[in-house]
Amino acid sequence: VRISELARATGVSVPTIKYYLREGLLPSGTPTASNQADYDVTHVERLRLLRTLREVGKVPVSRLRDLVAALERDGGTVHDVLATANDALSPTPPPDVDPRARALADDLVAEAGWNRVRPEAPDRDNLAAALQAVLGAVSTDAGRNVLRAYATAADRIGALDIASIAAGDRQSVLRRMVVGSAVFGEILSALRRLADEHHSALRFGDQDGERVR
Amino acid sequence: VRISELARATGVSVPTIKYYLREGLLPSGTPTASNQADYDVTHVERLRLLRTLREVGKVPVSRLRDLVAALERDGGTVHDVLATANDALSPTPPPDVDPRARALADDLVAEAGWNRVRPEAPDRDNLAAALQAVLGAVSTDAGRNVLRAYATAADRIGALDIASIAAGDRQSVLRRMVVGSAVFGEILSALRRLADEHHSALRFGDQDGERVR
Repeated sequence: VRISELARATGVSVPTIKYYLREGLLPSGTPTASNQADYDVTHVERLRLLRTLREVGKVPVSRLRDLVAALERDGGTVHDVLATANDALSPTPPPDVDPRARALADDLVAEAGWNRVRPEAPDRDNLAAALQAVLGAVSTDAGRNVLRAYATAADRIGALDIASIAAGDRQSVLRRMVVGSAVFGEILSALRRLADEHHSALRFGDQDGERVR
Repeated sequence: VRISELARATGVSVPTIKYYLREGLLPSGTPTASNQADYDVTHVERLRLLRTLREVGKVPVSRLRDLVAALERDGGTVHDVLATANDALSPTPPPDVDPRARALADDLVAEAGWNRVRPEAPDRDNLAAALQAVLGAVSTDAGRNVLRAYATAADRIGALDIASIAAGDRQSVLRRMVVGSAVFGEILSALRRLADEHHSALRFGDQDGERVR
């Protein structure tokens, strides 16, 4: 199909498609006699993937290259690709993480039994940076118990995420993994805020006695 | 203290402090004879809150106003403020959510028993927008079971979030609630990606047989 039809089929604008072509994020089409190019189902699939990553995964354009490179790389285990995808989907950690917060993050990872997480995984620093903002509160026994409960919930979800990756050819396994990591992160965030709203209404929403002074 | 000392105490730059003052996000200081103003511990606390919301909660400057208004509003239950904070911390939902995805989101909320969530909560549409990206996969029985497990994990976490809000004066309860909602969202996202990495390494990291074709 022509580029205009490709745009119609995927909901991605022609200028954006041209940008992806220039940046090597989308493979070139097959040149046709009329000084145009012909695109096929692989282009449709790649554009849908890029659109999902941008719109749902909120992946910056600058990170798309790493993800596409991981998708196209030969060899390596599925796990190598998941680690690359995770790194591309993680926020860039701040440069000045408090060593106490980082030690707490490493403790939590160890306590959860996640002994296969790379020491250099950027999410260790992302976790530490978030912990740093509430370091007083999470350094108490009660705070530590809340963190452990979070880690337990995350462990169940992580086991489920990986168990639900179905077998298939390389491209489709990797695409599902990358999309799953981005999309299910958004699903979990939205579900948590919805659960917060419900439980807050139960505890704080009705009685005058629960009004804040 | 003077504005320069306020900047040093909070790590927020003088130009940013002046911007917050102009925008009404930070109350004015007490005027002094020397055509300057004097700031106190309430200004330090507000600036720390604003910094945490910006840096950890990734709250856009344009949303800070809603949060500060919720903090300063008289009356209303703690729950009213949590709902406002959640709305300010939620991404803006896309305008064109597929009605089937929205119906699935509403089903999930109902199945989870979250009958106190407002019909107009923007996170219903945020959940729907994420579900829309994987609608084929989550419309199967297996996909539905994964979503239910996510909702169960979110329900435990939501109950925990609300249970761990300690009593206190209005400002401190609200501050902990807003910071908690932003910061613990980041903590959960980082923990999930770390758990994914661990479980992926267990399942896919070692054996040649698990290499993707």
